[in-house]
Amino acid sequence: VFAEEESEPALAVAARATIARFDDAEALERFAAAIDVATYEFENVPIEAAERIAARCALRPSPAALTAAQDRLTEKTFLRGLGLGTAPFAEIEDVAGLAAAARAFGGGILKTRRFGYDGKGQARLVFHAPDQVERAAAEAHAAIGARPAILEGFVPFRRELSVIVARSADGAVACYDPPVNEHRGGVLRRSVVDGAVSPQTVLAAQGVAARIVDALDYVGVMGVELFEAENGALLVNEIAPRVHNSGHWTLEACAVSQFEQHIRAVCGWPLGDPRRHSDAEMLNLIGEEAHDWSRLAAEPGASLHLYGKADARPGRKMGHVTRLLGPAANRIA
Amino acid sequence: VFAEEESEPALAVAARATIARFDDAEALERFAAAIDVATYEFENVPIEAAERIAARCALRPSPAALTAAQDRLTEKTFLRGLGLGTAPFAEIEDVAGLAAAARAFGGGILKTRRFGYDGKGQARLVFHAPDQVERAAAEAHAAIGARPAILEGFVPFRRELSVIVARSADGAVACYDPPVNEHRGGVLRRSVVDGAVSPQTVLAAQGVAARIVDALDYVGVMGVELFEAENGALLVNEIAPRVHNSGHWTLEACAVSQFEQHIRAVCGWPLGDPRRHSDAEMLNLIGEEAHDWSRLAAEPGASLHLYGKADARPGRKMGHVTRLLGPAANRIA
Repeated sequence: VFAEEESEPALAVAARATIARFDDAEALERFAAAIDVATYEFENVPIEAAERIAARCALRPSPAALTAAQDRLTEKTFLRGLGLGTAPFAEIEDVAGLAAAARAFGGGILKTRRFGYDGKGQARLVFHAPDQVERAAAEAHAAIGARPAILEGFVPFRRELSVIVARSADGAVACYDPPVNEHRGGVLRRSVVDGAVSPQTVLAAQGVAARIVDALDYVGVMGVELFEAENGALLVNEIAPRVHNSGHWTLEACAVSQFEQHIRAVCGWPLGDPRRHSDAEMLNLIGEEAHDWSRLAAEPGASLHLYGKADARPGRKMGHVTRLLGPAANRIA
Repeated sequence: VFAEEESEPALAVAARATIARFDDAEALERFAAAIDVATYEFENVPIEAAERIAARCALRPSPAALTAAQDRLTEKTFLRGLGLGTAPFAEIEDVAGLAAAARAFGGGILKTRRFGYDGKGQARLVFHAPDQVERAAAEAHAAIGARPAILEGFVPFRRELSVIVARSADGAVACYDPPVNEHRGGVLRRSVVDGAVSPQTVLAAQGVAARIVDALDYVGVMGVELFEAENGALLVNEIAPRVHNSGHWTLEACAVSQFEQHIRAVCGWPLGDPRRHSDAEMLNLIGEEAHDWSRLAAEPGASLHLYGKADARPGRKMGHVTRLLGPAANRIA
């Protein structure tokens, strides 16, 4: 494991560790020379570091996948280029441009192009009369630190789904059943897979995910977040080139979890069966909710996961609990 | 992790390792001083090493549990003392004593008192006429290296079951559903949990296991092997003071596996729910069977586990595969 800090939880289960900064070329090269395949679990690995690794050993997913996912403008443009639905979006360089786009979209969510996650680097832009637009734009722009951004128009959607998709080096694709995701304060709160999504929508969502990984010649697991619009259309919200929080329930409800699936893909193994045997609910433990671990550990049917993070800061994902809800309903064979 | 050899698979997922012999007092004490709780996954840890650890930190299960399980005579005597059924057995010190016991039991299985596993240190003693007893006894005695032993009379049994039982430091007990176990050449081949054992027998078997862990004031997971006689009676074959091969299916078929359950118990956590959500079959991969890993990895519904052992020697357990068979049948609520 290559980590920037000694406190990284992965180090507790690593045979060997390299602790260094991502800009330490010598450490990166020493690390890459000692291994056969590298992967990452964090999409904000600097692209220069990724490319340095990829020059020495296999890096899966590729630096190209990382590039596509690191910048919201690149990402959305790529998705549009595949003919996939997205929210309306516009590149924002300054307050004037933001005001114009806000007028065109009727408001929206301003998001920094880079380094946003869990609702960070985002600001809602709402106005109730035309003469409020300039001021709302200025406030939103300041709220995200006046950084390069995109504005996404509001999309009225019924619910958010996500597809955890895996693609192997030889092009095989395996998709897990899409959970319905609920957020709170911009942070994923709960993912449920219980047959409530119709088989048609499941297949359409999996088809979208398969198109994306094929187009990127992707190897590994990817999380694809989708909005299901009121009319049933699917819009891609974002892609994450890694295992995904909304797929943690696969540990308990599938024969092969997203984590093993990712390792299988990057190591050139056959992909495992992604079908779920059980319905499941995954609940994130955010901040001090993790202090309730003992009660959750004793709950019948529950599987508790604590990540070993040092501080239970507000809004921080400290662990999760998965509850199995019974045999899989409405499963597609 | 404390290991005698660099090749121990556990070292690949350990944050820190001590590589030393079990008779290296200084290494044992250094190891124990650095940790809060120790446990073991191998019942042949020398009792002196266990006691040295227990003098410095918590050791769970206790040295007393290790003592009870290391010697077949002590073990069987202990089980009898609890009023539990076992095969008839006799302590064997020499060929004459063996011949006498063989005559009394009508033959049986000669087993070394210590260090036997997977059918090693065992010899069948069969005779068809009274004048064959002396010779059969001499041969069996030589076959196990003339070591201290017990003779167990043959027990006609319908099938072998096992209970994976956990007991916490505060005395709570949790039992998994007993699988039916099949052996080949003295080695566990297959464990199946599919509702084929009647609820009455399940409860009786779990009751036997609970009595054993209570009597030992045991903390951790134990495997209890049982014979179900033709008349339905349960006889204890042996106990293993650790997670057990016949419980590996709990990784896929239960919310909390025997492995997590063991760590919960030794760390003072609440025990997890042991009920299975699915029926399951666990198949050991013995020797070269593990070379078939790629086909097994791709099998729908299968979970493959390879242990990372260096050589696929004949008879050696190299991994296992678990197949989920559908929602749990005949489950006790």
